Amino acid sequence: MAKDKKLVESITSMQEDFAQWYTDVVKKAELIDYSSVKGCMIIKPAGYALWENIQRELDRRFKETGVQNVYMPLFIPESLLNKEKDHVEGFAPEVAWVTHGGQSELQERLCVRPTSETLFCDFYKNDVQSYRDLPKVYNQWCSVVRWEKETRPFLRSREFLWQEGHTAHATAEEAQERTEQMLHVYERFCEEVLAVPVICGQKTEKEKFAGAEATYTIEALMHDGKALQSGTSHNFGDGFAKAFDIQYTDTNNQLQYVHQTSWGLSTRIIGAIIMVHGDDSGLVLPPAIAPVQVMVIPIQQQKEGVLDQANKLYETLKTQFRVKVDDSDKSPGWKFSEQEMRGIPVRIEIGPKDIEKGQCVLVRRDTREKYQTPLEEVPAKLARLLDTIQADLYERAKAHRDSHISDAFDYKEFQTALDKKPGFIRAMWCGDQACEDKIKEDTTATSRCMPFEQEQISDVCVCCGKPAKKLVLWGRAY
Amino acid sequence: MAKDKKLVESITSMQEDFAQWYTDVVKKAELIDYSSVKGCMIIKPAGYALWENIQRELDRRFKETGVQNVYMPLFIPESLLNKEKDHVEGFAPEVAWVTHGGQSELQERLCVRPTSETLFCDFYKNDVQSYRDLPKVYNQWCSVVRWEKETRPFLRSREFLWQEGHTAHATAEEAQERTEQMLHVYERFCEEVLAVPVICGQKTEKEKFAGAEATYTIEALMHDGKALQSGTSHNFGDGFAKAFDIQYTDTNNQLQYVHQTSWGLSTRIIGAIIMVHGDDSGLVLPPAIAPVQVMVIPIQQQKEGVLDQANKLYETLKTQFRVKVDDSDKSPGWKFSEQEMRGIPVRIEIGPKDIEKGQCVLVRRDTREKYQTPLEEVPAKLARLLDTIQADLYERAKAHRDSHISDAFDYKEFQTALDKKPGFIRAMWCGDQACEDKIKEDTTATSRCMPFEQEQISDVCVCCGKPAKKLVLWGRAY
Repeated sequence: MAKDKKLVESITSMQEDFAQWYTDVVKKAELIDYSSVKGCMIIKPAGYALWENIQRELDRRFKETGVQNVYMPLFIPESLLNKEKDHVEGFAPEVAWVTHGGQSELQERLCVRPTSETLFCDFYKNDVQSYRDLPKVYNQWCSVVRWEKETRPFLRSREFLWQEGHTAHATAEEAQERTEQMLHVYERFCEEVLAVPVICGQKTEKEKFAGAEATYTIEALMHDGKALQSGTSHNFGDGFAKAFDIQYTDTNNQLQYVHQTSWGLSTRIIGAIIMVHGDDSGLVLPPAIAPVQVMVIPIQQQKEGVLDQANKLYETLKTQFRVKVDDSDKSPGWKFSEQEMRGIPVRIEIGPKDIEKGQCVLVRRDTREKYQTPLEEVPAKLARLLDTIQADLYERAKAHRDSHISDAFDYKEFQTALDKKPGFIRAMWCGDQACEDKIKEDTTATSRCMPFEQEQISDVCVCCGKPAKKLVLWGRAY
Repeated sequence: MAKDKKLVESITSMQEDFAQWYTDVVKKAELIDYSSVKGCMIIKPAGYALWENIQRELDRRFKETGVQNVYMPLFIPESLLNKEKDHVEGFAPEVAWVTHGGQSELQERLCVRPTSETLFCDFYKNDVQSYRDLPKVYNQWCSVVRWEKETRPFLRSREFLWQEGHTAHATAEEAQERTEQMLHVYERFCEEVLAVPVICGQKTEKEKFAGAEATYTIEALMHDGKALQSGTSHNFGDGFAKAFDIQYTDTNNQLQYVHQTSWGLSTRIIGAIIMVHGDDSGLVLPPAIAPVQVMVIPIQQQKEGVLDQANKLYETLKTQFRVKVDDSDKSPGWKFSEQEMRGIPVRIEIGPKDIEKGQCVLVRRDTREKYQTPLEEVPAKLARLLDTIQADLYERAKAHRDSHISDAFDYKEFQTALDKKPGFIRAMWCGDQACEDKIKEDTTATSRCMPFEQEQISDVCVCCGKPAKKLVLWGRAY
């Protein structure tokens, strides 16, 4: 049992050091490994299987809204990146530059895509001629590179995986509709599949995407009270279209600029799953996204019939659930710890005594509740239990999130709340960037969004006391 | 009708200029577009949907053999690439180099991965400690970059999409088994899903992968008689393990080097689908891989009830088939041409006269045969028809391939066959690279493989007349 304990003890507790707990979990749950390439991570099978499930489910939801997948080049010529002024200012400082191909120096530097607006624009410029060619609702799954100085697994790395949708529309209204539609696809995906509650809103001018007219975001709250921007959707208006000259002939035979959007969600969201649901024993995965939903663990497996019965259970369950049997030569206690570390939602214990009674024991990862269950009732019980876990994880996360939202009416309250009860702060804002800058400078908190659900909780800006324009959600963020 | 004709006439015929026909088809079937990034292509929705189907089916087959997916960094530090001598010699001349990150010059250049052996080795060096950690059977789906001078869509481009499997094993036998197993996964996938017959064999020393002990290949024959290497599988023995110091403790507590393999298949295979099945009207897609298997085309759709009936048919078919209705305002003739260009296996024509008779017309893309079919029999008839088309495409491709294999017993026959009947040539070889070099120099043909099915068709080398060692399949290749 000394060995079993060690596995669990080797994670720092959340209370003690949340950042170290996070690092321990991503390593011990074997989600990632560090590589010889500074700032880039290796996504191991357990981590990549999560991303595959995210991709599959999100891609299905995209396609239901008419999205088509494409693939654009990895490289962007410098002159192309330079075409939209705000965009290049936002991204040029953090891109990687290819200067040599084969043995010779390139005539023009290429950057490794940090995002692909410029490539899609360059493509749409030729591909869109008439109103008949619209809308274009394209998406790509790929990796992008941003030369970050400080990196953390999933949350910030020099290369990360994501999807980026890029659309072109005939009208401003249609572009706005698509921008909001995709934000709500993200919202529902996070809440229904990842059991992560999010708040939808619009970014301030200061925080919006480089080149966008408006940026919308879903913001989640991590266990330590810090916010994580979990997905964004941008309306570009016709700004990029003008910079790249993307025009179409409308039904009256007039040339018009297209209106564009883009929207993205990345492997960062895996950080949210970890930091919203995890505990001191490791990862806790929502059943809807867990690569393995059920682990069958035989007890005293060397005794006659135990392994047979475990395998029989596996056969019964495998068509309906993502199930595995751990028949390795480790001790049951070690297996329990391992399965808890990996966040597998349910384990099934089955030993000689259980078999005698024609039953087994189902154990929830999240609450550790145990259910003695007759063997023939396992499939039905398990289906209900996984649904319950999924719902409970969401409710627990929502309760935590809601209990960590404070309203602040003056600057002192704002600062106190941030330190005493880390979480989101709802406070009014005058609309002036100087106040955002001051708040960031004083507290490191940033405006996360102007929530869609606006409320006038006070008449004055929490920072400067001038008349308030918007309710803003503030917080320290990853 | 002038307009309808134009669409088809705008493709060059295969006979006239095969290379131009190929370029026309990839463009007109909207598989790709050229980009502002020299040598890189844009994969458009129709092309990417093919790749998605390839991925889905191949990934399923991989996982059945125990493969797990991972993701490795995009970049390889120069010192890491340099670790295995043959490997770096093979790849360094054609890689893209990142020299700057953000505003500053990197201390060490990074190459954009041309393939990831070195990254996997660097990872396995730390991740493999004991025999309990073996085997590692990992794969990744990603893009790679090779700085090619001359590029052609799908066949050769500076960036392409692929999967690369990388495995580590305790014994040489197990590595060899895995190398051959994955080659046969490719073989069955090409034959069963893409309807592309392939010949399996081993590459000569000259043609093997940089750093491999042995390379195996599947070779397909295109319609113009040129070969296309369609997938490869390499056994590295313990060469990389020694270069990277990947050792494990065996059951006797002795340190041993691992034995490794890698295997890859790329978007190049889409070129094979085009050049094996296509015709002068455009693409011909095997039903198993076609993104759209059936296109319903209403005739006189403005007449009452026609569109309703077309949509009703769609509703009946959509759960069982990948089906669409073309209810655009184009003429039926134009739609027929378009559907033929895109290679959709079956179209269903339904007009007022058909509806009167309670029938519709099924038309095969490959043979253009028409089948008047009572509406209630459509699902069953369609299922059989798609199976028939799939089987026929394979048989037709195989008959073409087999009728373009010549046996050559002396050098004159070899040269005559190459020019008179372009295709594969079976001829004996002494095993000396000088003969391969001479043949390539004289004829531009290369040794495609030493087929697994060996036969001693002559005692002497087709080139030098010395005693023959191996039967080799030769051909001009893409």
